[in-house]
Amino acid sequence: MKYIDGGVCAAQGFKAAGLHCGVKSHNTDKKDVALIVSDCDCTASAVYTKNVVKAAPLHVTKAHLRNGVARAIIANSGNANACAPNGEESAEKMCGFVADALGIPAENVIVASTGVIGQTINTSVIEAGVPELVKLLDCSRSQDAADAIMTTDTVRKEAAVELEIGGKTVRIGGISKGSGMIHPNMGTMLCFITTDAAISAPMIKAALLETVKVTFNRISVDGDTSTNDMCAVMANGLAGNAEITEQNEDYSIFVNALADLCRTLARRMAADGEGAKHLITCTVSGADSVEKAETIAKSVISSTLTKAAIFGSDANWGRVLCAMGYSGAEFDPETVDVSFKSQAGEIQVCKAGRGLDFDEDQAKKILTEPEIEILITLKEGNSECTCWGCDITYEYIRINGDYRT
Amino acid sequence: MKYIDGGVCAAQGFKAAGLHCGVKSHNTDKKDVALIVSDCDCTASAVYTKNVVKAAPLHVTKAHLRNGVARAIIANSGNANACAPNGEESAEKMCGFVADALGIPAENVIVASTGVIGQTINTSVIEAGVPELVKLLDCSRSQDAADAIMTTDTVRKEAAVELEIGGKTVRIGGISKGSGMIHPNMGTMLCFITTDAAISAPMIKAALLETVKVTFNRISVDGDTSTNDMCAVMANGLAGNAEITEQNEDYSIFVNALADLCRTLARRMAADGEGAKHLITCTVSGADSVEKAETIAKSVISSTLTKAAIFGSDANWGRVLCAMGYSGAEFDPETVDVSFKSQAGEIQVCKAGRGLDFDEDQAKKILTEPEIEILITLKEGNSECTCWGCDITYEYIRINGDYRT
Repeated sequence: MKYIDGGVCAAQGFKAAGLHCGVKSHNTDKKDVALIVSDCDCTASAVYTKNVVKAAPLHVTKAHLRNGVARAIIANSGNANACAPNGEESAEKMCGFVADALGIPAENVIVASTGVIGQTINTSVIEAGVPELVKLLDCSRSQDAADAIMTTDTVRKEAAVELEIGGKTVRIGGISKGSGMIHPNMGTMLCFITTDAAISAPMIKAALLETVKVTFNRISVDGDTSTNDMCAVMANGLAGNAEITEQNEDYSIFVNALADLCRTLARRMAADGEGAKHLITCTVSGADSVEKAETIAKSVISSTLTKAAIFGSDANWGRVLCAMGYSGAEFDPETVDVSFKSQAGEIQVCKAGRGLDFDEDQAKKILTEPEIEILITLKEGNSECTCWGCDITYEYIRINGDYRT
Repeated sequence: MKYIDGGVCAAQGFKAAGLHCGVKSHNTDKKDVALIVSDCDCTASAVYTKNVVKAAPLHVTKAHLRNGVARAIIANSGNANACAPNGEESAEKMCGFVADALGIPAENVIVASTGVIGQTINTSVIEAGVPELVKLLDCSRSQDAADAIMTTDTVRKEAAVELEIGGKTVRIGGISKGSGMIHPNMGTMLCFITTDAAISAPMIKAALLETVKVTFNRISVDGDTSTNDMCAVMANGLAGNAEITEQNEDYSIFVNALADLCRTLARRMAADGEGAKHLITCTVSGADSVEKAETIAKSVISSTLTKAAIFGSDANWGRVLCAMGYSGAEFDPETVDVSFKSQAGEIQVCKAGRGLDFDEDQAKKILTEPEIEILITLKEGNSECTCWGCDITYEYIRINGDYRT
C-alpha cells in the first residue's frame, strides 16, 4: 500500500468540484459547496453523530442510503442546517438540485452540511450554483471540494492510497474537514471517502464501522460532539477486483488500507484543532483490555488542564495522572509510568505513580515540538490504544468566542 | 435563617488562623497553611474526590474520621501532596504537629492539601509554623484561614448562617477554595464547615452527603476532577440544641441551612473559576426526572464551546442544544425551549427546537452582564435542576499554560 495524490478523485471514475455559492452571505469568496460524483452507481454507507440532536441532512442521507446505493455527494459549509425551520425539506431540495442536473434519482444523493446551527439555509443560492458545479466536475478537483467543506480549518485535508486486491489495483481516497467540536464519537467532522474497489453494500458498511471506531472516534479537540458529523463512503467497483462479499482476506486488506487512510485524516484533523499549536498523541499500553486503554487515553487527550499544560510546554504529568484517575477506568495508580516524547527526545517523568526528578530544561525542549507523545504504561496486560488530540490555546478562545457572528 | 459574618469561626467555640510557612518556596509571602480548631471534640464527616488517584491527605483523613470524631483541621496550599514519595507519611506528620501543639490525639486531626501534584511536600516548614499558628488562633481569623487555602482563586470564599433549632441559636460557617479543576464530583475544591449544632456523627455524615450532592457536585469550571478535593464538616454541639440523632424536623432545618450555605460557596467558586468573566447558571425544567435535568444542565455548563460563546457574549444557542444532545440524556429535541437571562433582561432564542428571530443587540446586552442564566425547558414533566459554571477565557489558558513552574 502506498500514498498517492488525487484525494477524493484518486479512485477511478470519481470527479469532484467546489464553488462559492454564497451560503453564508457575508463571506464573499470562500468556496462553500462541494460536489462529488461517480461515473456509475456505488455501494455506499455512512456513519453519523451520536448526538441526540441530529442535523436534517443526516436524517435525509440515512433515508437515502437505506438501499446501500449512492452516486453523488453534495455538502456545504457556512450553515449546519440543524435546528432550523424546514431543515429536512431544505436537505431534500439540495439532493434534488443534484439529481436534476445529473439525471439521477434524488435517493442516490448523499447530503451533508456544516456551519452555524439554527439558521435557515439559503437553498436558492445552492440551486443556482449546482449547474455550474456540474460543469466544473473533474478528476483534478479534489482540492476544490476539500476547500468547500472547510470552516475554521486552517489546512485542507485530503489523502489517497493505492493497494492491490486479487491482482487488481484498488484506490481509496478521501477529503475531510473538522477542527472544532471534534470529539470521540465524531465532532463536526465531515469525511467523504471514495474507492473503486468492488465491495458489497453490507461489506462496505462493516468496513466503515470498523474503521471509524479505531480512527475518527479516537480523536478529540474540545469534548463537544457536533450535531452534524458524518463519514460517508462510496465504492463504484471500477477497479475490477472480485467483489468483496464476505470478511475474507481481500476484505482485511481493504479494511487495513481504509483504516490507514482514515488514521492519516484523523491525525490531520486533531493537529488542525481550532487554534492548536501541538498535536498530542496519547498511547496507553500494558492495559488488560483495549477498551480500558482507550478510556484512559481519551480522558487524557480530552483533559482541558492537560491540553493547557502542553500549550505551555509544561511537563505537568500530575494532570495526566489526574485525568487518568477520573476517566472512569479502574487501575492501580501505584503502577503507572509516564513519559513525554517528541522529535527532540524522550523523558520519563513518573515511575510507579510517583514523580521522578527530571531535567526541566530537557522536558521543556521536548514539549516545544509540534508533535507531542504522552506515553503511559500500566502493568496489567498487553493491550494498548492510541488517541489523538491537541492543545488549547488563546486562539481557540478567540475563534469560539465569536464564531457565529 | 440569615447570613452573618465570621466565616468558619461564626459558630461558638471555633478558632482559626492562617500563616505563610513557605510550603512553596518561591512564593514569598502568601499565607499557605490554615488551622481550624474547636474548643471541644466534634462529630465530623468528610466527602472526597471520586478520582481513582487520590492524594495522600485524603487517605489519612478518611482513616482519622473512621470514628466520626475530630477536633482540628490543618490544610496547606502550594503542594497537593499527591503522587509524591512518602505522601501518607507527610500527611500524618502534619497531623502530628497539630496534635503535639494542642495536646490532642493525631487521629482527631483532619488534613488537606492543594497545589502542584507530584512533588514532595516540605513538612519541616510546616512543623516550624504550627506553634506560631496555634498562637494566632482566634475567632476573628476566618479570613486568614480562607486566604491560606487559596491557590489561583482571586476571591476569598467564606460564609456563615444563623438559624434556630428547637429554640436554640445555631450557627454554621465555612471557608472554601477552588477555581480550577472544579467539576461535578468535586474538582480541586476544599471546603471546611464548622457548626455549633449538636448532631450525631451518623447524622452529620448524612447531612453532608445530601448537601454536597445538590451544591458542590453541581458546579463545573473545566471538567477536570482533582485528586485532592475534600469537603469536611465539624459540629461541636455548643449551641445546646437537643442533639439531632435522626432525620426529624430539626435535621431538615439543619440540612436546609447547610445546603443554602454550601450553595452560596459553590456559586462563588464557579464565579471565580480560573480566568472567568461570567458566572453561568443553567436551569433545566420540565424534565421527567431531576437526574435527567441534572445530566443536561451539567453537560451545558461543561461544554467548552458554550463557555467560549458566553465569553464572547454570543447568543449561540445552537451550542446549548448540541451540548444537551451529547449529554447522554434522552429527550425530544423538538420540544426544547431556550432563553438567556441576566440583570439586563430575558430573551427567548429557541422554541420547540427551532431558532427564533431575535434581537441580536438585546441578546448581546443580556450576555455582557457578569451573571448569565441559561433557561432550558423540556415538555416532559415537572422536575428541574440548576447547575453552575463559568466561561472560558484567554486568562484561563494563561493561568493553566504555566501553573506548575
